Amino acid sequence: MAQNTIENDTAHAAERTPVALLGLGTMGTALARTWLAAGHPLTVWNRTAARAEALGGEGATVAGTAAEAVAASTLIVLCLLDDASIGDVLGESAADTGIDLTGRDVVNLTTSTPAQARARAEWARERGARYLDGGIMAVPPMVGVPQAGGYVFYSGSQDLFDRHRATLAVPLATTYVGEDTGFAALHDIALLSAMYGMLAGAAHAFALVRKENIDPATLAPLLADWLTVMAPSVHRTADQLRTGDYTTGVVSTLAMQVAGTPTFLDTAEQQGVSPELLAPYFDLMRRRLTEGGSADEDLTGVVDLLLR
Amino acid sequence: MAQNTIENDTAHAAERTPVALLGLGTMGTALARTWLAAGHPLTVWNRTAARAEALGGEGATVAGTAAEAVAASTLIVLCLLDDASIGDVLGESAADTGIDLTGRDVVNLTTSTPAQARARAEWARERGARYLDGGIMAVPPMVGVPQAGGYVFYSGSQDLFDRHRATLAVPLATTYVGEDTGFAALHDIALLSAMYGMLAGAAHAFALVRKENIDPATLAPLLADWLTVMAPSVHRTADQLRTGDYTTGVVSTLAMQVAGTPTFLDTAEQQGVSPELLAPYFDLMRRRLTEGGSADEDLTGVVDLLLR
Ligand SMILES: NC(=O)c1ccc[n+]([C@@H]2O[C@H](COP(=O)([O-])OP(=O)(O)OC[C@H]3O[C@@H](n4cnc5c(N)ncnc54)[C@H](OP(=O)(O)O)[C@@H]3O)[C@@H](O)[C@H]2O)c1
Ligand SMILES: NC(=O)c1ccc[n+]([C@@H]2O[C@H](COP(=O)([O-])OP(=O)(O)OC[C@H]3O[C@@H](n4cnc5c(N)ncnc54)[C@H](OP(=O)(O)O)[C@@H]3O)[C@@H](O)[C@H]2O)c1
Repeated sequence: MAQNTIENDTAHAAERTPVALLGLGTMGTALARTWLAAGHPLTVWNRTAARAEALGGEGATVAGTAAEAVAASTLIVLCLLDDASIGDVLGESAADTGIDLTGRDVVNLTTSTPAQARARAEWARERGARYLDGGIMAVPPMVGVPQAGGYVFYSGSQDLFDRHRATLAVPLATTYVGEDTGFAALHDIALLSAMYGMLAGAAHAFALVRKENIDPATLAPLLADWLTVMAPSVHRTADQLRTGDYTTGVVSTLAMQVAGTPTFLDTAEQQGVSPELLAPYFDLMRRRLTEGGSADEDLTGVVDLLLR
Repeated sequence: MAQNTIENDTAHAAERTPVALLGLGTMGTALARTWLAAGHPLTVWNRTAARAEALGGEGATVAGTAAEAVAASTLIVLCLLDDASIGDVLGESAADTGIDLTGRDVVNLTTSTPAQARARAEWARERGARYLDGGIMAVPPMVGVPQAGGYVFYSGSQDLFDRHRATLAVPLATTYVGEDTGFAALHDIALLSAMYGMLAGAAHAFALVRKENIDPATLAPLLADWLTVMAPSVHRTADQLRTGDYTTGVVSTLAMQVAGTPTFLDTAEQQGVSPELLAPYFDLMRRRLTEGGSADEDLTGVVDLLLR
């Protein structure tokens, strides 16, 4: 029975799409392991060879050069530090590096700006390759753990996405967000930006209690629960942005919240905490109220003030 | 049977603690309705009489003056705009207003700084009253809806809290955080500060997609889910703050995240969005890395940089 299972797995493995993965940092290594575990033939390359060799011991084929890795499979996945490192590895043109991308399906999971993603699509096209952009919404421990809630945004050719969907879904769930190649990056950056706002707020909160006899581990569950309770308020913001009516569904008025800002700034002052992470948001709330926002509206007008 | 139930309710109502509530804004009105619904004798007062009269129609006793309200019951609950409005209503001393607080149990749910809360405790003591401070972790629609997850932090005399716990638990769950009168306010402000950070991040996210063909109502569930998935990262921050070791449990290194900041700022630039809500946090991340933080540590060092 166990023998049978192994034979079946081996039989399936032969049908599984081979993957070549360039970039074995914390994230690339986590991705690699899930493809190996699922029986995909995997070729890996990394600038620092030691990281590739570690995966060699786990069943991956180690390519000696990036060119070798690219030659090893049709599906090429990039998980490098940033857009510039892609240029360093694959060159701006075939003449640069002698690396031939013709006929390749390049899936780029390197965090990029929308403009970088669109430029990489063009760069791939000029080199005879197809291109799909991805933005990873997960930290490495979430990779291969579906219940952790991580996933990857994809954008660009829907055909290409559909062709590789099953392979791409091995490490993390997939969310396709449109033919505009820049949209995966835009969604990625939007969500991560919101997360950095939340982390900034949490840093301020921890700083406020730092000099008191309050255990940060007592504050943490209160913080996590409160942020979780309040996160769905973004649905209300979205509805208000769609309709342009910022006074519907309001639960705490702009005027009341602006009136409350000194309480926050004074508390920071009393606790010896710099207000630099909160003050910019309060400034925009106040500006909205003084520049024509209604006293009874929500905080949504801040979104308009950010746009220039 | 129905008749019996009503008689029982009436019998219990006679035993329920009478409450006098000063301040009938959105929050005060929501609190009032839950005490009425639970059968507590309720006396209300509000600066603008119309709001009190509305509750009169629902079974509350309307006090003509704040002094009358204070005279009506031992338990006095304040839910006014801010600390200054408490001074306006009850005066800084009995001589000021002729309002006698002797023997009263004052529970102040007005959002305050820790210092204001401590000063109010002293103010109450000088006037012969006992004092409990509260910080409301809820918006009005959560009041009286236990499953919505709202609650109130209380601090000050544990005895006083225990005496009124059942009455206070009628509108919102209670969380007692210690004898230091300032702690309810400190916890309240810490959690709300973190929430404002999250809302600032979400505003930036909505601004990023504002000029694109992306429906904010499509972004909202992605945002809410991502923030919910990432909120528990505060447990890791707390553990690191406790031990002082910011390199344990790291899932994304400071160096990698600092390297990523231009991607966020460039995306904002490309989308015509001011970076003012994100830049201060990125500046602190960068400062930590250049001022001795380890490349492999977490973002926790930012907390230390906020303290002066
Ligand atoms: N870790 C996360 O939490 C996370 C979450 C979401 C998205 N991501 C994204 O995933 C990508 C990889 O992140 P990571 O966490 O794996 O980062 P990492 O651990 O810092 O690894 C960076 C990778 O890029 C390589 N690299 C950097 N500069 C290079 C260059 N000039 N030429 C060739 N290779 C270069 C590194 O090679 P060496 O080994 O030779 O240094 C390494 O393989 C990034 O775009 C990141 O934004 C990460
Ligand atoms: N709403 C929320 O989402 C929320 C959440 C958590 C905590 N809180 C806190 O709850 C408290 C009340 O908030 P709210 O939402 O009910 O605010 P609100 O709707 O603006 O009501 C403010 C209340 O304070 C009274 N007031 C203001 N200035 C006064 C003065 N100088 N003298 C006498 N009365 C004065 C108002 O009386 P008039 O009717 O005469 O104007 C009204 O009763 C605040 O401390 C707030 O921070 C509110």
